Amino acid sequence: MENTIKLAATRYAGNPILKPADVTPLLPGFEVIGVFNAGVIRHEDEIVLVLRVAERPVQHDAERYLYPIVDGQTGEVRIESISRKTEGADFSDSREIRTPDGLYLTSISYLRIARSRDGLHFEVEARAALFPANEYEVYGIEDCRVTRLGDEYYLNYSACAPIGITTALAVTRDFRSFERLGIIFHPDNKDVTIFPDRIGGRYYALHRPSASRFGQPEIWLAESPDLRCWGDHRHLLGCREGTWESTRIGASAVPFLTDKGWLEIYHGADESNRYCLGAVLLEADRPWVVKHRCDRPILTPEADYETTGFFGNVVFACGALCEEGTIKLYYGAADTSIGYAEIVLEELWAFMGV
Amino acid sequence: MENTIKLAATRYAGNPILKPADVTPLLPGFEVIGVFNAGVIRHEDEIVLVLRVAERPVQHDAERYLYPIVDGQTGEVRIESISRKTEGADFSDSREIRTPDGLYLTSISYLRIARSRDGLHFEVEARAALFPANEYEVYGIEDCRVTRLGDEYYLNYSACAPIGITTALAVTRDFRSFERLGIIFHPDNKDVTIFPDRIGGRYYALHRPSASRFGQPEIWLAESPDLRCWGDHRHLLGCREGTWESTRIGASAVPFLTDKGWLEIYHGADESNRYCLGAVLLEADRPWVVKHRCDRPILTPEADYETTGFFGNVVFACGALCEEGTIKLYYGAADTSIGYAEIVLEELWAFMGV
Repeated sequence: MENTIKLAATRYAGNPILKPADVTPLLPGFEVIGVFNAGVIRHEDEIVLVLRVAERPVQHDAERYLYPIVDGQTGEVRIESISRKTEGADFSDSREIRTPDGLYLTSISYLRIARSRDGLHFEVEARAALFPANEYEVYGIEDCRVTRLGDEYYLNYSACAPIGITTALAVTRDFRSFERLGIIFHPDNKDVTIFPDRIGGRYYALHRPSASRFGQPEIWLAESPDLRCWGDHRHLLGCREGTWESTRIGASAVPFLTDKGWLEIYHGADESNRYCLGAVLLEADRPWVVKHRCDRPILTPEADYETTGFFGNVVFACGALCEEGTIKLYYGAADTSIGYAEIVLEELWAFMGV
Repeated sequence: MENTIKLAATRYAGNPILKPADVTPLLPGFEVIGVFNAGVIRHEDEIVLVLRVAERPVQHDAERYLYPIVDGQTGEVRIESISRKTEGADFSDSREIRTPDGLYLTSISYLRIARSRDGLHFEVEARAALFPANEYEVYGIEDCRVTRLGDEYYLNYSACAPIGITTALAVTRDFRSFERLGIIFHPDNKDVTIFPDRIGGRYYALHRPSASRFGQPEIWLAESPDLRCWGDHRHLLGCREGTWESTRIGASAVPFLTDKGWLEIYHGADESNRYCLGAVLLEADRPWVVKHRCDRPILTPEADYETTGFFGNVVFACGALCEEGTIKLYYGAADTSIGYAEIVLEELWAFMGV
């Protein structure tokens, strides 16, 4: 019999908890157009978000479109422009400009810290935590996940550049100073979530390669002896035709261990680029074994701030906390702002039918 | 001043040294259409080639096109067929059939051993060394490289499947029994060459990711503590517009150490899919430093068996020996057969201008 139990994800009434107007631009001549897809972790008595902030040049020229370029050596940002009437240029995607000469992103993303004691009201740091600083990052750094391992917090994020989209690793102990540790997944790979514990002495991560020739962007599992080198790649979870997750799926929140196994909240998109969140349960000792995959999404874009924005119809998490039986979901909404929602774990189990 | 020194790669007069007619098909109802892109290594008093053998169903039906399907669980091969008049099906690429329902390869590739004492006359084993045997290999396994490390010989090869093109690792001590060690590079990645020595205690490999969104297929470097897990990825070598290597490049032969550094013989292709071989010199202690890159190819498709075949205008090496100052190049010709050529190392240095 089909499971018809409904899931009540409770959105916070004050959503979005962070929106562009709450963040001062870092760059002169720029405006913040997005604060979204944040990594989340509890650190001492605070909840820390590692925000993705997107800034773009203030458009003050009717004739020319302004876009940012990062110097891969110095990390300096300059503003370039292109005539809006350029032959063969395509401005139809708000995220990028495609010209016969190449591709330019309309905004630059970087990572910035926000802190809160109540988990709802956040103070955003004035400076960047990590800003594009090398040849792998010149199109921006995006969608950070945070994994605590002992006293260290590992941040992984998508590094975008003309040479491809890689996943980079950094480490911090205090969320004040950060050390880059190199590229851990080669192009194209994003949506990496490192498990917050070793299993059988090995580190594990979910990752999302994008094949160029066959296949769809789907979820794979990798293992590592040291967090820097990854291998024994296994295909874990595929798209499902004709569903909300028909064209691409990727890990979203860092998985957390429950009494039933590892719970992973992941995202999926359909042909119309509508992004929802789903849930999958992996075996505690063998995370390559899928115990249960939920057919239905656990969060879909419904609220105004989720359906409308820089890139509408998107809910996309990079992190969640599970505390006292409640999943606390901090999620990007429409590539513009951050929403907060709670899901009672017991209700999720019933919804999933486990 | 431009270097105008010519390079005399001496092709063996008896080329190709191995061609489809020299190999008995393994599968009933199949014919061998290619024996090419072989890994090469000296083992005891023999030169061993790890051949890529491609077989396809003998086409005996004017109405229907026959193609092979491998069962990912059992490794069994069955023959399927599709009407040559199927609506929307594209038979124009000899390597594949594209239909609205998906993609099918016209042949199945696997690995087979050939041995020789003189390096010119090879005996091909009757059985497969490695045959597709899991979900990562159902479209075939291809383009093996062999790296000797101590008493062990590591084979890496492209594993092709609907979920993507990965690179898999296997190990042997005797070229009789082989043990699979899992997937070392996630989709899409091929043209992996593992260095035959550790550098600063670490293993190194060149690899060739194919990004789906930005970038071209180019050569990256990775390092590893254990050969199974790879990280610290660095972009090493890019394509060069308007040249013989304008659209894609990848490592070809396993690099070998010379008194000037690591010599890598790699391949590049242009817009017309013409594949040539080039050479690059990397620092001995810091293989991420390019000491010298040769502008001109060191081998181009010129002979009949290189310009004409299953996929013409291709010379493509997966291995070379460097013995007594001579590079012994075993190379795939037109995705059909194997050619042999010698290049005197001193002449190569002069050609490269180092």
